[in-house]
Amino acid sequence: MTSTPQEAPGADDSGRRPRLTPPIADVRRAVRESFERMRAAGFATDSAASADVLVALSGGPDSLALAAAVAFEAPRAGIAAGAIVVDHGLQPGSAAVAERAARQAVELGLEPVLVRRVEVAAGSGSETGGPEAAARAARYDAIDAALAETGARAVLLGHTLDDQAETVLLGLARGAGAGSLSGMAPQSGSRIRPLLGIRRATTTAFCADSGLEPWRDPHNDEARFSRVRVRNEVLPVLERKLGPGVAEALARTATQLREDDDALHDMAVETIEDLVEHVEAGIGISAGALEANPPALRHRVIRYVVESEFGVSLSRAQTLAAASLVTDWHGQKGVDLPGIRVVRRGRLLVFERAA
Amino acid sequence: MTSTPQEAPGADDSGRRPRLTPPIADVRRAVRESFERMRAAGFATDSAASADVLVALSGGPDSLALAAAVAFEAPRAGIAAGAIVVDHGLQPGSAAVAERAARQAVELGLEPVLVRRVEVAAGSGSETGGPEAAARAARYDAIDAALAETGARAVLLGHTLDDQAETVLLGLARGAGAGSLSGMAPQSGSRIRPLLGIRRATTTAFCADSGLEPWRDPHNDEARFSRVRVRNEVLPVLERKLGPGVAEALARTATQLREDDDALHDMAVETIEDLVEHVEAGIGISAGALEANPPALRHRVIRYVVESEFGVSLSRAQTLAAASLVTDWHGQKGVDLPGIRVVRRGRLLVFERAA
Repeated sequence: MTSTPQEAPGADDSGRRPRLTPPIADVRRAVRESFERMRAAGFATDSAASADVLVALSGGPDSLALAAAVAFEAPRAGIAAGAIVVDHGLQPGSAAVAERAARQAVELGLEPVLVRRVEVAAGSGSETGGPEAAARAARYDAIDAALAETGARAVLLGHTLDDQAETVLLGLARGAGAGSLSGMAPQSGSRIRPLLGIRRATTTAFCADSGLEPWRDPHNDEARFSRVRVRNEVLPVLERKLGPGVAEALARTATQLREDDDALHDMAVETIEDLVEHVEAGIGISAGALEANPPALRHRVIRYVVESEFGVSLSRAQTLAAASLVTDWHGQKGVDLPGIRVVRRGRLLVFERAA
Repeated sequence: MTSTPQEAPGADDSGRRPRLTPPIADVRRAVRESFERMRAAGFATDSAASADVLVALSGGPDSLALAAAVAFEAPRAGIAAGAIVVDHGLQPGSAAVAERAARQAVELGLEPVLVRRVEVAAGSGSETGGPEAAARAARYDAIDAALAETGARAVLLGHTLDDQAETVLLGLARGAGAGSLSGMAPQSGSRIRPLLGIRRATTTAFCADSGLEPWRDPHNDEARFSRVRVRNEVLPVLERKLGPGVAEALARTATQLREDDDALHDMAVETIEDLVEHVEAGIGISAGALEANPPALRHRVIRYVVESEFGVSLSRAQTLAAASLVTDWHGQKGVDLPGIRVVRRGRLLVFERAA
């Protein structure tokens, strides 16, 4: 697809601007409101930067619709918008897919448009959640580098309400707590997600109405990915059996659980300073203070301390095992967790690196 | 089915005690552990009472397995156990079903066995969640009366892990927060649920292995009930697509969310005393204090105050609308909620009964 500046992408046969269909209006409005929230939160443009924001573009319908809406709204908001396309090199022809997406970004008027090829570490995936997690880590490294390179202060990500609903269902299937179920935040640091209130069907319709041809990721049909099964086989059943609006309900739940988890996490972090002391072979937490706190805080303090000190993310069962040395103390020998030994020493619950 | 004291229910052909199959062992262990937790929490028997605990028996497999396990374990724990059968009068033949369940309870050795017929208020259902909620309210009223009548301190309810998982999914489908998703507590006041860690398949197997014939509630096949659809059509799909263990994962999630909700609810209630003052036409909350609190507490304080003062349960959207007079104050006129008007008066957010 080519276009001249006069003939915008999605122009109709007579060469005029694309019609403002409801999907186009909805996505643009979401982007506009996101810009307004960024401004309200102190976002400022910088004339020395080559862009103020970058759209993370895969070429799929979500990020392509986002890119097009940003290209339309950013100049009206006085914001200079570029794009970053990350080529993960995981599929044959991925370089061509990235180049095509970059061309679309240029045609939409985004500038600069960066294409970055990353190496997805084969080994790192196993610890942190498989190849999907490894690809995500590599992608965000490349995005952060692109922000630094361009001077842009934020990256706009194309995650939709459907992504959010899928995240909640995947967390449920694992038996996770509020931290995992709360899904993705509309803004976390430099990462902004303007489309979290938009259904995936709307971004697809946006592309069709704009004459944009999105790339179709073949991974999206591979049922070996649990997210793909949730998307294609679980969510549709929920909507059919429990009524439409289930995806919206899941996203609403995610927002409320995020509020809860944020508040409890902040409280846990605040109390940690008073509770924790470094001891000879590791770190100790006041057993009395742990016991006096409600379980929601007790378990978060334990998880947070172990995560910060040892880089280990404790499961629910492991957290409860460590907590039992406080809540059910009767002289046990201690608890062995992966790489960590937990023992009670007088008034302290002590975590040591395992010998 | 009849049995003499020598020939316990479920005795095999030779007339000996029933074999201790894994389902029987699992349910009995759950009851035993529940009794231990009750003792640890201060539960004491009372020789003046005609029973220490009552089993709430419908005759279905869950409560029948519970009744049988309690009949076995209670004497060994020094606890006198009776039963209460509630006849809701909602189905033809319900009185006969109740009488049959009561006979089973007597044969199991529970004493006393009370049968109570209740009237399910037709009108009350619409406000509080339909006929299921009205039946539940009538049932708990009858149970509380039975506790008072016998002097029993606790009622044992047959809710299983499957019930818990279904509750979480129903809450998700509504887009509810942690309060609804957290499901049922193992103990809340006088209500004890020993089987929350037991799958429904295990209670069914318990009955088969014990030669007990449970009643099959025809309502359990009626797809017009959303809980029935979740049970028969949603949960099986989740287990097939996301792997077995989904029900257990949902129950684990419920436990964690209950911890979070309990902690935040307690904090909200604790802060309310300092924040709230009665004003001429209603009740006011300090806007500054609401704003200083994290959203998780702000929204709970608003919901709690409205619930206590007006008996109205605010939805998420209504709570956010009221909160906007604090977080996004720019001189709005006020917000109209069902039966309540919310206005900003200086430093107070004021809730008044609508004229």
